[in-house]
Amino acid sequence: MKLKTTMLLAGLTLTTAMPAYAGSEIETLITMLHQNGTVSDAQYKRLMAELKQNQVQAAEEKAEVEEKLAEATKPSDVEVTTNGGLKVKSRDGKFETRLGGRLQADAAAYGGEPDLGDGTEIRRARLYLQGTMYYDWGYKLQYDFVDDGASGIKDAYLSYNGFDNLEIKAGNFKDPFSLQEQTSSKYTTFSERGLPSAFAPGRHMGVMATTNHQNWTLAGGLFGDKVNSEGGADDEGWGAGTRFTWAPVNNKTEVVHLGLGLNYRETGGVNSARFRQQPETHVAGINIVDTGTIAMIDDFLKVGAEIATVQGPFSAQAEYITTSVNRGSGSDLDFDGWYAQAGYFLTGESRNYKNGKFGGITPKANVGEGGIGAWEVALRFSTVDLSDADIDGGEADSMTLGMNWYPTPTLRFTANYVNVLDVNGGANDGDEPSVFQLRSQWAF
Amino acid sequence: MKLKTTMLLAGLTLTTAMPAYAGSEIETLITMLHQNGTVSDAQYKRLMAELKQNQVQAAEEKAEVEEKLAEATKPSDVEVTTNGGLKVKSRDGKFETRLGGRLQADAAAYGGEPDLGDGTEIRRARLYLQGTMYYDWGYKLQYDFVDDGASGIKDAYLSYNGFDNLEIKAGNFKDPFSLQEQTSSKYTTFSERGLPSAFAPGRHMGVMATTNHQNWTLAGGLFGDKVNSEGGADDEGWGAGTRFTWAPVNNKTEVVHLGLGLNYRETGGVNSARFRQQPETHVAGINIVDTGTIAMIDDFLKVGAEIATVQGPFSAQAEYITTSVNRGSGSDLDFDGWYAQAGYFLTGESRNYKNGKFGGITPKANVGEGGIGAWEVALRFSTVDLSDADIDGGEADSMTLGMNWYPTPTLRFTANYVNVLDVNGGANDGDEPSVFQLRSQWAF
Amino acid sequence: MKLKTTMLLAGLTLTTAMPAYAGSEIETLITMLHQNGTVSDAQYKRLMAELKQNQVQAAEEKAEVEEKLAEATKPSDVEVTTNGGLKVKSRDGKFETRLGGRLQADAAAYGGEPDLGDGTEIRRARLYLQGTMYYDWGYKLQYDFVDDGASGIKDAYLSYNGFDNLEIKAGNFKDPFSLQEQTSSKYTTFSERGLPSAFAPGRHMGVMATTNHQNWTLAGGLFGDKVNSEGGADDEGWGAGTRFTWAPVNNKTEVVHLGLGLNYRETGGVNSARFRQQPETHVAGINIVDTGTIAMIDDFLKVGAEIATVQGPFSAQAEYITTSVNRGSGSDLDFDGWYAQAGYFLTGESRNYKNGKFGGITPKANVGEGGIGAWEVALRFSTVDLSDADIDGGEADSMTLGMNWYPTPTLRFTANYVNVLDVNGGANDGDEPSVFQLRSQWAF
Repeated sequence: MKLKTTMLLAGLTLTTAMPAYAGSEIETLITMLHQNGTVSDAQYKRLMAELKQNQVQAAEEKAEVEEKLAEATKPSDVEVTTNGGLKVKSRDGKFETRLGGRLQADAAAYGGEPDLGDGTEIRRARLYLQGTMYYDWGYKLQYDFVDDGASGIKDAYLSYNGFDNLEIKAGNFKDPFSLQEQTSSKYTTFSERGLPSAFAPGRHMGVMATTNHQNWTLAGGLFGDKVNSEGGADDEGWGAGTRFTWAPVNNKTEVVHLGLGLNYRETGGVNSARFRQQPETHVAGINIVDTGTIAMIDDFLKVGAEIATVQGPFSAQAEYITTSVNRGSGSDLDFDGWYAQAGYFLTGESRNYKNGKFGGITPKANVGEGGIGAWEVALRFSTVDLSDADIDGGEADSMTLGMNWYPTPTLRFTANYVNVLDVNGGANDGDEPSVFQLRSQWAF
Repeated sequence: MKLKTTMLLAGLTLTTAMPAYAGSEIETLITMLHQNGTVSDAQYKRLMAELKQNQVQAAEEKAEVEEKLAEATKPSDVEVTTNGGLKVKSRDGKFETRLGGRLQADAAAYGGEPDLGDGTEIRRARLYLQGTMYYDWGYKLQYDFVDDGASGIKDAYLSYNGFDNLEIKAGNFKDPFSLQEQTSSKYTTFSERGLPSAFAPGRHMGVMATTNHQNWTLAGGLFGDKVNSEGGADDEGWGAGTRFTWAPVNNKTEVVHLGLGLNYRETGGVNSARFRQQPETHVAGINIVDTGTIAMIDDFLKVGAEIATVQGPFSAQAEYITTSVNRGSGSDLDFDGWYAQAGYFLTGESRNYKNGKFGGITPKANVGEGGIGAWEVALRFSTVDLSDADIDGGEADSMTLGMNWYPTPTLRFTANYVNVLDVNGGANDGDEPSVFQLRSQWAF
Repeated sequence: MKLKTTMLLAGLTLTTAMPAYAGSEIETLITMLHQNGTVSDAQYKRLMAELKQNQVQAAEEKAEVEEKLAEATKPSDVEVTTNGGLKVKSRDGKFETRLGGRLQADAAAYGGEPDLGDGTEIRRARLYLQGTMYYDWGYKLQYDFVDDGASGIKDAYLSYNGFDNLEIKAGNFKDPFSLQEQTSSKYTTFSERGLPSAFAPGRHMGVMATTNHQNWTLAGGLFGDKVNSEGGADDEGWGAGTRFTWAPVNNKTEVVHLGLGLNYRETGGVNSARFRQQPETHVAGINIVDTGTIAMIDDFLKVGAEIATVQGPFSAQAEYITTSVNRGSGSDLDFDGWYAQAGYFLTGESRNYKNGKFGGITPKANVGEGGIGAWEVALRFSTVDLSDADIDGGEADSMTLGMNWYPTPTLRFTANYVNVLDVNGGANDGDEPSVFQLRSQWAF
């Protein structure tokens, strides 16, 4: 019976992972020695008491060690990561804070007419603080130090993400329009966006709802004016915009993307508008086509159609944008433009597509880790027509050849040769400038 | 004797938490078996040697585990927290670094006269870096990106906190004057401060000493000019200010606050001053009362009296400010104004009062954690009179109705309806504009 | 034989640090009791089985503890430090992110002619984000909030450090010229640099290679224009610069430094240049010597010679800079200047010299940690001559007496008394202004 109890205890010891202290065999041995009379009753009693006391002590010590171990091996409350910039995340997902930025340093040499001064430029120098608060709320404040005052405020918003697959934003951010505009300047294939960027709405103060799915996205918003628009006695302009994208094919190396955007804007108290575009270069800061300020404009509507694909290392995208300007007096105006571009990764990477726009490139093998980074060649044709009726802003066609080197996911070096094929009308009628420009970029 | 030693050893083992190894019962058993002759002398000797050797080894192993455990469970040198923004603190209190910011995005729709343009605005977009160095020294640099250049520098100082209950600051910060000015724009009950904000001294470069106690605070400083004042051949203006507050009642849900402030300023080389105020809204940026630049002003003195209370979810505050302007030629001028406001938390929170000013709201239950946040309704009457002698800046009275929603401690949505009851004199004589304005805010 | 095995096992136990479980003496005892017949064969078998089972279990438990301990005591992937600002470093050296800044708050009182207005100023208010990416790449973005827009962009570059002892930078940074320019404003002995700072090239957009050794450094770069230079139809200016330094003696408390710099600049489309200098004070913002804009300048060449030494608490440095201006029409112009200064640490510290320039001061004993910080007195004579041929910019001589207090490595308080001994020629001919100025500074 005693023995059975002992065995039972030993069994329990094994299954419940009790302390390793003085294995049960000592208890068995003592019991045996007691049973065969080697150990007297008094001795047996004393031995068993001592054994129990030691077992208790050992169990306590073991529990203490296990408690300390549990404490020592439990993950920290926050997780800190740095891979360019800084990310601190509470492990329960309640809070996250990210600090990051980008720098684009450009140099350009020009040829042809009109005169465009060779030179250098910091194209963008941004820092941002972004994060999550209390699980469902997001925030961002991003500033571009190349701008003055409020003009430098880029993304600056509060968002709510508590609904399934739906983000609601309030503050300053981009209107949902045009694939090349939605794609961050960090990730566009060429240093500058194509000529139809003349119609880019840019950022406005507003409220927007976005839903992103594997095969489609839809965004719609109501917008006020630019963040740097001055107040005063006149009402500011306002607008509304929506963009729908459909990606019937969307996997890591194969994408087919179609998109449609509408963007309406009332001009408000200024009652005018201006469309203009630089020749796919920003260093000289000179426009190649320019309508000048067109007076008496009540509102205008932009419509954009997008198509894009990724097929392994090959990618292509094209957009057509038309802008219908509604004048109070005089005939209405129609301006439009389009571009088509293709790129190929010599090193086999694929463009990263997500949520209806393109993201960054992750080289197959980084420089410094045995690789040569990612190398991409690309070609683009783009055109914009800013002449209609009495407005002679000019029409321009441009061809750009580009080479990108991404040594690591956070770095990019770009060489672009832009050849303006023709300017037709406007102040630069007949001009055909060209530019060779270089960019070095870090971004995270 | 041997047995006694053994017992003693066993006792020691227990009290000194020696290794759990081979409980003392084995030693007792061996000794017993030796004593009753079952174990021979030689065997006994060998067994005891083996036992001691094993005990030593076990003790060593245990010590090693405990050492590793101590290392593993010792707190890290720095503590990183994120709950909006970022805080890194060395555990010895020697260093602390905080990164935070705020964003206030506003929209406003106006009615009545004068013309005030509907629109949107980023009211404030700030980031700051703040911290502690070498226990006793503090620093802060805060910038508001809606401003241009040096104008955007807000708090920017060095402080010494090595004296008991005394902080000495040098740099750029607010003069110690007026309860609604001392209370951060993150925490004011309404989107904009009341009309007597026309007399707010704002921030200057200076040196200030502050002592904060449970029931009273005292601050006094010497100030130069605004941080964005240009140098040149003329001396800059300078001033001095002091503020005393007394809180005979000050606990978590009940506060009685009285305050008195004096603020003197010499105008320096510009030898002029201007007082003006917008109608408790900032989007349109139009003043409702305005003295214009008053020439030949040597100096002026502001006196402010404050009273405030918190009674559970109810709070109220009122201030009266008078400004005596000393003109070199012409009679002296007296301008003044006051406001009184009350607020009530429908969800039962209390305004947070500390160091002679109001702080942020912590909802009883956050949105996303089972609650609806904190909800507050508030009403304010305010008035300012900028007409005296030959100066006709105008007098305005205004009533504001406000609703605040704090979903979490870092978020706030505010709706204000401001009704200017009357403008008497000045450029906007007889006007009664009104505004409905919304703000979304994150701050930490 | 059995016994031998047991002994062997015990030996193994000791050497391989096997589990402390049930010391081998129990096995020995059981074997003995079996051998002398106290324990029967059946009992022996059962005891040994139990013992083995317990040994296995104990070994498993011990392994588990050791595994957890290894996990718990392994260093974290990232290391977070704060000692003013913030540093996060991945332990493998792949990434590092630093956030820091500086604030210099000045006050000045002037005497003598020309009129210089007393006042205050934030001299510099900077934040920076700096780091390492993928082992070999570096980046920095630093902004000074006292400036407007792009003018405030200071260091903003991308660098490659993958070659041994060679750094290649692209972006915006200082030309390699002049010891007092290379030494950060955080670390210069006086609040303002000496009068030959009139010839400081400052920062330009460019590409530079630098190699730093214990006893010499060499830097050379190609530069475009200032980061805030506007584009336009005209080419921007460009330049090239190199600096060589030799430190035949370079240890912690004893340094001998010699340096030579060349800096060439083509003016580009502006085709002009201007040299001017304030009287070693910046608060009033008034120049004491000034050539005005000199038209028709194609290019100019600066040559600078440097000498410096550290001998324990004593330090001295001197520089001579000459600028040869090449005019298209009219005779060429030669301007020059020099300074010599000496400093002495009353508290025994030595100036910190590294990579051809001076760094920060680490007090022997910080305030707040039982010390009084570091105290330094210093004297400087400096002169600059901006008059030549038809250009009458004036010549100025100045003497400055300085006192620095560094309570901790991140803090500095400076008092400077500057006495302009004489102005000869130019708009301020015969003037001898003086200034007493104070600075409080934090920097990290």
